[in-house]
Amino acid sequence: MKLGDGVEQSIHAVALLSGLQGGAVLPAASIAEFLGSSVSYLLKHLQAMSREGILESVPGPKGGYRLGRTAEKISLLDIVLSVEGPRPAFRCSEIRQRGPNQLPKGLYLQPCTISVAMLRAERVYRAELAKTTVAEITTQWLAQGEGVIAARSWTFLEINKRSQT
Amino acid sequence: MKLGDGVEQSIHAVALLSGLQGGAVLPAASIAEFLGSSVSYLLKHLQAMSREGILESVPGPKGGYRLGRTAEKISLLDIVLSVEGPRPAFRCSEIRQRGPNQLPKGLYLQPCTISVAMLRAERVYRAELAKTTVAEITTQWLAQGEGVIAARSWTFLEINKRSQT
Repeated sequence: MKLGDGVEQSIHAVALLSGLQGGAVLPAASIAEFLGSSVSYLLKHLQAMSREGILESVPGPKGGYRLGRTAEKISLLDIVLSVEGPRPAFRCSEIRQRGPNQLPKGLYLQPCTISVAMLRAERVYRAELAKTTVAEITTQWLAQGEGVIAARSWTFLEINKRSQT
Repeated sequence: MKLGDGVEQSIHAVALLSGLQGGAVLPAASIAEFLGSSVSYLLKHLQAMSREGILESVPGPKGGYRLGRTAEKISLLDIVLSVEGPRPAFRCSEIRQRGPNQLPKGLYLQPCTISVAMLRAERVYRAELAKTTVAEITTQWLAQGEGVIAARSWTFLEINKRSQT
C-alpha cells in the first residue's frame, strides 16, 4: 500500500497557503517552486482540492490559489480524500462467491466478514486523519527549528503573493 | 490509495487453509481454483506468506500449503504486511527541505509534523488490523449463510487436500 506523492505535496501546499492573508493568492508555479515539485503534476492536485472547496482558485494574470476555508476547518483527511479519491483502499471483489460449486446468491446477504474487518480498520484510519487540521500542523512548525522553518515560508509568501486589491 | 488484489486473495487463501486438519496440505492450483484467481499471481503471495511463517510449504508431488501457525495467531495485519510489504503508505520525502532559500539541515532535527500525523493514523490502522485474527473471520462465516458457506469450503478441502501420512 502506498499513498501517491500527491498527498505529501498537497498537504505541504495547503500548509504554505495557510500563511496568506487579506485575500492574496499564490500562483501554482510559486507553490511548485517552494515544494521543489513539477507544476503540471501539482496543478492536478490543486484543481482537485479546489473542486472540494479546500482551495479557491482566482483566474487571470493576477490569479493563483488561496484557502477555500480557514486552516482550522481543513483536516488531513479532507486533503487525502481529495487527492486519492473517496474509495476505500480495500475493495471487496466477492471472492467468496467465485470458484467451483457456487452457492445461491441469497446466502450472501450479509457482507463478507473479511471486507467488514478491513473497512473497520480504514474507518479508524480516516477518523485519526480527520482529527488533525492544517492549522495544527503549521502551529507545530512554529515550535520547530527555532521558528526559522515557519519564517522561511512567510518570507516566500511575502515575495511571491499576488494581492487582489 | 488502493490495496492490491493480492491482499483479498491472500486473506481468503489463509481462511480456506485454516480448515485443513491433521497436517494435510492443499496445492496452490486448488487454492487458486477455489478463489477463482490465477495460480501464477497467487503463488507470489503464497510464497511471501510462507517466508513470514504464516504458511508452511510442503514440496513434492504430494505437496502444497498449510498454515504455519494456528489461525488464532494469524492476524489480518500479518497478512497485509506480508503481501504489501512493511513500509508505511505515507513516505515522507522531506519536501520541507526542498525549494528555494534552503535552511541549514540542523534546523530539521525533529521529523516533519505532516509525516508524524500521517504515520500516527497508519499506526491506528495497523493496530485495528492486528486485532482481527483469521480464526475470528472463519468463526463469523459459520454464522452466515446458514453455515452453508463454511460447509462449501470444508467440502472443497475434503476433496482436494493431500494428506501427508
